[in-house]
Amino acid sequence: MPGSGHDERKVSIALGARSYDILIGHGLLGRAESWGSLPSASSAVIISNPTVLALYGAALHAVLATRYPRVVIVELPDGEAYKNWSSLDLIFDRLLGEGCDRKTTLYALGGGVVGDITGFAAACYMRGVSFVQVPTTLLAQVDSSVGGKTAINHPRGKNMIGAFHQPLLVVCDLDVLDTLPAREFAAGLAEVIKYGPIADAAFLEWLEVHLDELLARDRDALAHAIQRSCEIKAMVVGADERESGLRAILNFGHTFGHAIEAGLGYGQWLHGEAVGCGMVMASDLSARLGLMSPEFVSRMRWLCERAGLPVRAPKLGGAERWLELMRTDKKADDGSLRFVVIEAIGRASLRVVPEAVVRDTLSAQCD
Amino acid sequence: MPGSGHDERKVSIALGARSYDILIGHGLLGRAESWGSLPSASSAVIISNPTVLALYGAALHAVLATRYPRVVIVELPDGEAYKNWSSLDLIFDRLLGEGCDRKTTLYALGGGVVGDITGFAAACYMRGVSFVQVPTTLLAQVDSSVGGKTAINHPRGKNMIGAFHQPLLVVCDLDVLDTLPAREFAAGLAEVIKYGPIADAAFLEWLEVHLDELLARDRDALAHAIQRSCEIKAMVVGADERESGLRAILNFGHTFGHAIEAGLGYGQWLHGEAVGCGMVMASDLSARLGLMSPEFVSRMRWLCERAGLPVRAPKLGGAERWLELMRTDKKADDGSLRFVVIEAIGRASLRVVPEAVVRDTLSAQCD
Repeated sequence: MPGSGHDERKVSIALGARSYDILIGHGLLGRAESWGSLPSASSAVIISNPTVLALYGAALHAVLATRYPRVVIVELPDGEAYKNWSSLDLIFDRLLGEGCDRKTTLYALGGGVVGDITGFAAACYMRGVSFVQVPTTLLAQVDSSVGGKTAINHPRGKNMIGAFHQPLLVVCDLDVLDTLPAREFAAGLAEVIKYGPIADAAFLEWLEVHLDELLARDRDALAHAIQRSCEIKAMVVGADERESGLRAILNFGHTFGHAIEAGLGYGQWLHGEAVGCGMVMASDLSARLGLMSPEFVSRMRWLCERAGLPVRAPKLGGAERWLELMRTDKKADDGSLRFVVIEAIGRASLRVVPEAVVRDTLSAQCD
Repeated sequence: MPGSGHDERKVSIALGARSYDILIGHGLLGRAESWGSLPSASSAVIISNPTVLALYGAALHAVLATRYPRVVIVELPDGEAYKNWSSLDLIFDRLLGEGCDRKTTLYALGGGVVGDITGFAAACYMRGVSFVQVPTTLLAQVDSSVGGKTAINHPRGKNMIGAFHQPLLVVCDLDVLDTLPAREFAAGLAEVIKYGPIADAAFLEWLEVHLDELLARDRDALAHAIQRSCEIKAMVVGADERESGLRAILNFGHTFGHAIEAGLGYGQWLHGEAVGCGMVMASDLSARLGLMSPEFVSRMRWLCERAGLPVRAPKLGGAERWLELMRTDKKADDGSLRFVVIEAIGRASLRVVPEAVVRDTLSAQCD
């Protein structure tokens, strides 16, 4: 905004009565006045983990204290292992113990785990209260901000129990990315890179030109990358809120990626790392299907590698194990092998792929 | 329907893309062809309890086996005490263990507890699958069929964790009411009677004329009473799906009723019994506010008494305890005493009532 001294950007997510804004800018956690109007509520509840609370809990508390009569902090244990019913129940216990009513607003301060649990808690508490996302990882800023997906894990599967519940507002403060470890930053970049091949050739070119600035966490480059990622995801999700068709293209790289995560054991590779490698594999698959050139595969591999992502896939005990893992993926309801493939840079589709072609990709891409 | 040999009725609930039908008739559990078209699915899962399964499990299984490749039965422990996360998790375990996907349809076969848990499980499993209500109590047929409210209890409060999730279809087979104990039948009648004073003077008169037929579980009388109750609830809920205003009138008798349930300990009086007594108290309150005549209070008391409902309230340790219980009711978010009162037969509203008037009603109505 000229004259404001703060280069804030806004992505508006149009979902009728459930429309909301994503604010992107630096210093947002310190400027309550930039957040616009929010429904009044008796209480705000910050839900976070010890790591993030130590860094940004005080700043968010200060902002919320100017807007709500009472601010409660709920600290969840840190990590994907705690994205379960126990953490959810811990939230419900506190909300009920503090007498929080239907007008309470929950604030998710953290990465994807905190965002997913908090969103699901908001979806269920008294059959639905409002929540605001304050994502503190690049992955959460570009991925969890749009789509309304909330969930917890079940011992038998990730994200099996959840709801679609849209936030009131998403606040992406670029400054919080300064404290993000390099490996997590790279994992977030994988989801950013994804939006080029599936939806926007110009964005892919922009990423190739500006990757070094992103890696240096340059504010302007980050703002553009996050804004464009959110815009593309919003466009896709807006056309398919309940995930019946088009939305599947957002899973580019994910069928291979999920197999890596499950095959190595969750937590060995970060989700974004598995997706980065999976995108290289899915690009290779697209080339083998005659849709794309080998040059495109090299281009994707080089971009992911520069971003700090692994680009060679693990063996996982061989092709049979790989195929087994990909057949039990949530999206394969009839046992067929389905992948998001690139048809042209900026255009993707979900296709059933012959097993022989998948085997060729596995032979070529696995160490 | 003339000529069909089956006097089936249908109430259509108009909620846009989430519209559905309530079928009311006898023998519906034995006639799959009356159920109309339902989305195809890989599996149907019957969720019920041992009591109801012994009576109607085989019949529903037979109907579903004609429509789905696979029918799974999940047996939950019987009773409100089990309307909790453990039962929900038992359902999720089975669904995941059986490989149920997003196209699975859950069937709730039972009363309000089974319906509430099953609906919430359907709302959350893989972020939402379809479900069908097959209510086997009068209360569930008139009350849970409309509104989309689903929930489980939390140790700190009833129905605190839940979702709004509409069924695909509701099947009210009148024959299943034959096995309902008299006390539970009376409790269901309380919710039927409620619809007269709040919305339909003619229905109140009809109930006074036909109560003996209802108590004899006459099919035609039951069909009319259930149909009219569902129609009225649908009208109210349709105007206020998310419970922001008008829908509150459905809680006529419930502020007093909840105090009775909580004060005596849940399970001492059935919910419908507490509501029946609560309606007499709320009618008395309406008269004390000058809105209704003492004759209306007598009329409500006599109708509830004939229905087999308690019409004298318990002391609960005195007026202070009563007031405390009613102030902590979920609907009283500012500590005021709010009640649904009758303004004219067929018209109700939610009002803040002076404490002195509430005390007068307590003095007059408590034993």
